[in-house]
Amino acid sequence: MLKIPNHQVAGHEASADKLGPLVDDSGRFYKPLQSGKRGAEEAAFYESFSSNTKVPEHIRKYFPTYYGTKVMKASTGVEHPHIVLQDLASTRVNPSIMDIKIGSRTWGPEASEEYIAKCLKKDRESTSVPLGFRLSGLRVFINDESGFYKPNRDFIRKTGPDDVRVILRKFVSSNSSEKLDTAPDCSLASSVYGGTNGILAQLLELKAWFEDQTIYHFNACSVLFMFEKGLVLNGASSNAEVKLIDFAHVTEGKGVIDHNFLGGLCSLIKFIFDILTETTGHAATNGQLEF
Amino acid sequence: MLKIPNHQVAGHEASADKLGPLVDDSGRFYKPLQSGKRGAEEAAFYESFSSNTKVPEHIRKYFPTYYGTKVMKASTGVEHPHIVLQDLASTRVNPSIMDIKIGSRTWGPEASEEYIAKCLKKDRESTSVPLGFRLSGLRVFINDESGFYKPNRDFIRKTGPDDVRVILRKFVSSNSSEKLDTAPDCSLASSVYGGTNGILAQLLELKAWFEDQTIYHFNACSVLFMFEKGLVLNGASSNAEVKLIDFAHVTEGKGVIDHNFLGGLCSLIKFIFDILTETTGHAATNGQLEF
Repeated sequence: MLKIPNHQVAGHEASADKLGPLVDDSGRFYKPLQSGKRGAEEAAFYESFSSNTKVPEHIRKYFPTYYGTKVMKASTGVEHPHIVLQDLASTRVNPSIMDIKIGSRTWGPEASEEYIAKCLKKDRESTSVPLGFRLSGLRVFINDESGFYKPNRDFIRKTGPDDVRVILRKFVSSNSSEKLDTAPDCSLASSVYGGTNGILAQLLELKAWFEDQTIYHFNACSVLFMFEKGLVLNGASSNAEVKLIDFAHVTEGKGVIDHNFLGGLCSLIKFIFDILTETTGHAATNGQLEF
Repeated sequence: MLKIPNHQVAGHEASADKLGPLVDDSGRFYKPLQSGKRGAEEAAFYESFSSNTKVPEHIRKYFPTYYGTKVMKASTGVEHPHIVLQDLASTRVNPSIMDIKIGSRTWGPEASEEYIAKCLKKDRESTSVPLGFRLSGLRVFINDESGFYKPNRDFIRKTGPDDVRVILRKFVSSNSSEKLDTAPDCSLASSVYGGTNGILAQLLELKAWFEDQTIYHFNACSVLFMFEKGLVLNGASSNAEVKLIDFAHVTEGKGVIDHNFLGGLCSLIKFIFDILTETTGHAATNGQLEF
């Protein structure tokens, strides 16, 4: 039984004349191959990555499991190839999700002039250039009655540096809708961002890999933050998880680290770290964490 | 007694109709204020930095000491303001020097469209975009007879990623002129790049600061590597030193780390680390060094 995923916060969505991603009951996510080179290149990345013995095992958990490609028939009868992936939210109840595009530059050196100009404009108009990353989408679970805080794409597109700082706080706040806008309490920060299994610890593990890996350059790739507020409020672990997604513009590393991704990742880490420091009083020494 | 410095490897040089930097006998370096906003902004940076109590003491040693500004009269009789700095090479005998401009982006977000377009073109044509840094100049001491290996600016401007890798090896090689071009031996790598006081250790100390500092963004700034081959050959320490120079495009950090500089710095660190690993067999774990 295929259906439209209800947890998507960014990226292409299905409409009357456009294919969108689908999920099934067995935890698989079907992503239509994007047009032009992009779809083929994303599939090629998953093929390469899933069989690359140089990728350490502890890093694989940050990527969706890849199950190959599959041609699927749309309701219009048209056939289209899809990438079959793990549905990252299938086992979750009301997950809060944030999609953050990493890097101050979202184009690879080998892209066309036209594409570079288009990306550069977006990078300069968004927070990509000033912050090294930009928000692509989010949804924050409030409660059963209010549902989700889910700003629309126009709002997301216009977020400036200060908005980003506020949204990263809202993401880990337990306020009701009215208060969330004016005074996010950050009361979930230590359970979601902090701790040995929290988002910050996972970002730091990724950072260590990015300081060393020279296999891939993850142009225009996103990190996804996910957790479940319900679990935290019941005293359980937040089940916080970081995943990398969107690999249509990955290029070969050619022996050079992905300094563009790494720089943006370090900037995001600093934002998360600042929120943790402010709200929980954890201390930092030379950029190293002390939990 | 003012004279033209003989150790300069990049940047503006004096000519019949242009002011260049000067040095005196007491170890001071006089840098003419650059035209337009640039000169004033570089002086403003030095003023701010030298009195900023948020800059840790162990980081100050990576910056030239600042002695203020001084109006000086050129031989033509024209008066021009200069920034007075420590002459970084004044106490050295035949120093080998490399100037590396850090960052895949050499423009700040607040620059003019014209300036951004000019920088972006250079960044894409050089190794700045692919590597996150580019060579601006170097001179490598060979011996008293042959003097220095000092490629000209045109050669430097055209260096590609592979050339950069070779030049970083040549910089720590003890071959004679002929062999240096064909088979650099990297025999000085462990004494210059390695060790607890070597260039890699210093770059890692800077990296830790850049992961945390949100005061300044060092657009188009260079790191300088310096050491003395004569000392190494006599069994002494190489006196290897890393300095940051060229602050005409520094902007305020506004609470965000300098992800552009940090990314490029990490890429350079990986290059140096690879040379050390190849030549000395030092091992790496998760990007951390084991000496």
